[in-house]
Amino acid sequence: CEEPIGFADNYCKTVLEFGHPVYVHNPHLDALKDDILYHFSLGTGSHNLPAMFGDVKFVCVGGSPWRMKSFTEFIAAELAMEDPKSGYPNICAGTDRYAMYKVGPVLSVSHGMGIPSIAIMLHELIKLLHHAHCTDVTIIRIGTSGGIGLEPGTVVVTKQSVDATFLPKFEQVILGKTVVRSTDLDQSLAQELLQCSKGLNQFETVIGNTMCTLDFYEGQARLDGAFCSYTEAEKQEYLLKAKEAGVCNIEMESSVFAAMCKLSGLQAAVVCVTLLDRLKGDQLSSSHEVLNNYQLRPQILVGSYIKKQLKAKAGNR
Amino acid sequence: CEEPIGFADNYCKTVLEFGHPVYVHNPHLDALKDDILYHFSLGTGSHNLPAMFGDVKFVCVGGSPWRMKSFTEFIAAELAMEDPKSGYPNICAGTDRYAMYKVGPVLSVSHGMGIPSIAIMLHELIKLLHHAHCTDVTIIRIGTSGGIGLEPGTVVVTKQSVDATFLPKFEQVILGKTVVRSTDLDQSLAQELLQCSKGLNQFETVIGNTMCTLDFYEGQARLDGAFCSYTEAEKQEYLLKAKEAGVCNIEMESSVFAAMCKLSGLQAAVVCVTLLDRLKGDQLSSSHEVLNNYQLRPQILVGSYIKKQLKAKAGNR
Repeated sequence: CEEPIGFADNYCKTVLEFGHPVYVHNPHLDALKDDILYHFSLGTGSHNLPAMFGDVKFVCVGGSPWRMKSFTEFIAAELAMEDPKSGYPNICAGTDRYAMYKVGPVLSVSHGMGIPSIAIMLHELIKLLHHAHCTDVTIIRIGTSGGIGLEPGTVVVTKQSVDATFLPKFEQVILGKTVVRSTDLDQSLAQELLQCSKGLNQFETVIGNTMCTLDFYEGQARLDGAFCSYTEAEKQEYLLKAKEAGVCNIEMESSVFAAMCKLSGLQAAVVCVTLLDRLKGDQLSSSHEVLNNYQLRPQILVGSYIKKQLKAKAGNR
Repeated sequence: CEEPIGFADNYCKTVLEFGHPVYVHNPHLDALKDDILYHFSLGTGSHNLPAMFGDVKFVCVGGSPWRMKSFTEFIAAELAMEDPKSGYPNICAGTDRYAMYKVGPVLSVSHGMGIPSIAIMLHELIKLLHHAHCTDVTIIRIGTSGGIGLEPGTVVVTKQSVDATFLPKFEQVILGKTVVRSTDLDQSLAQELLQCSKGLNQFETVIGNTMCTLDFYEGQARLDGAFCSYTEAEKQEYLLKAKEAGVCNIEMESSVFAAMCKLSGLQAAVVCVTLLDRLKGDQLSSSHEVLNNYQLRPQILVGSYIKKQLKAKAGNR
């Protein structure tokens, strides 16, 4: 255990005894009598967060509420902890901004599309885990992406999240000024996930960089948006430059996810399936059946990882 | 009628005869046999878009799918065109990314939270309206926002959408390079909406600048996020600077909305209610009843405007 600067003297002792906490970095929070997590329709005044969430060890997040519900049913069956048909109520039923489900130590939360949408969710999720006194939490984004030079259906575990100029940074605007944050992810967790996929041997999985953009069409060099001012050749040149910089896939949330999880001390990974090879096209023209099958792959991989971890923990007791 | 550069010789004649079309600026689209609007679960190959949407004259967009459904029921009753209880199916039922409803000439679409989420929706919406050969379309974003120095519940019609440094521009990254786009909105439409509100005389409405940010917490100088590195005094200083620059409210979608609508020739306005005064606080602690009442105000204003427009058109026939 390494003592971080600015923490209490008994930091290492506390971590060894109780596990790694989830950090907030906001001195103003203590002054709030009731912290309303508005976009979850939850709050410290209205809900007993430690009782509801204190046992959470894994958080899986993804864009689509339907997918996060189906992941909940999948993980329930996988862990055989509860009846998978028992029905899992949406904990955020009071709002339509996000959906949230829980099975034992696994929390499943949707985050919508794009950096701003996942950032709102993560601010409130980090506060929720902090208020609930959770420790040793692993968080994994299970998503979809466009691949570069990979067979569609390949799963990419992110090494580094890079921006549209292929640099591993996230720019956060605070009071009108830009602050640059690191987008480092947990390398050992990425390796464990890769090993897990090798054990499963059901689909191709690679480790590589993920480009995170603010736009799906012009921002990802697509030729099929409402606006397009570049040629097919310029598109190919840009994507090949990305490939040379180690980019395996493109999505829209990983950079702020990596930055915020790092700041709060969460062990984080990004696991996205590629729905198409962007060097060969832009439109998602595969059948619903094929795309749905692809979307299950990150769930299968992460489900298997969680099962293994829980088994190892039970063995250590 | 003014002839735009690069358009066909018969542009003015066509506009006078058929009305203003919805422009796409993408030479690659013509080569697509089937244009799949993936995030709507619609497409030119699978759906008869002109038959489904050819009569659309007004598009109202907002973040929340529930709110856009309730707007649909509200506008149906307001226009007395169809039985408001008849039930309006979600046209995008095949996906959970966006929800879409239609009543006569009014289309209601949700866009999620943040610039990337609304940008994906707008790319596909502009293509949809273009493929459907719609003409003379007015598009209005009805949303929620944080006010600066306004009584909560005040409705703001946006004059200019400005960024976090109070400049009226939107930065679009294309092939890794930043392109600056104008965020001008239709000033005559804004004035008509203001007049409409005066006629209604139900709540305060003002015209002013709207600041559009990429983040809800640190990006809007909130003190209640998971992270906060500034003081209450620094927050106040930033918000007062915004106020001096004419900013009346803060939200997260107006800049890309203004930029994309301008490019496609859509007459556009942004009408957002303020849920709180950010100079006095950050948390949305008003009761659900009060907040729901506030959220109805942009609907009431825009509903009244649409009714007036349709009445005027019917009178001209």
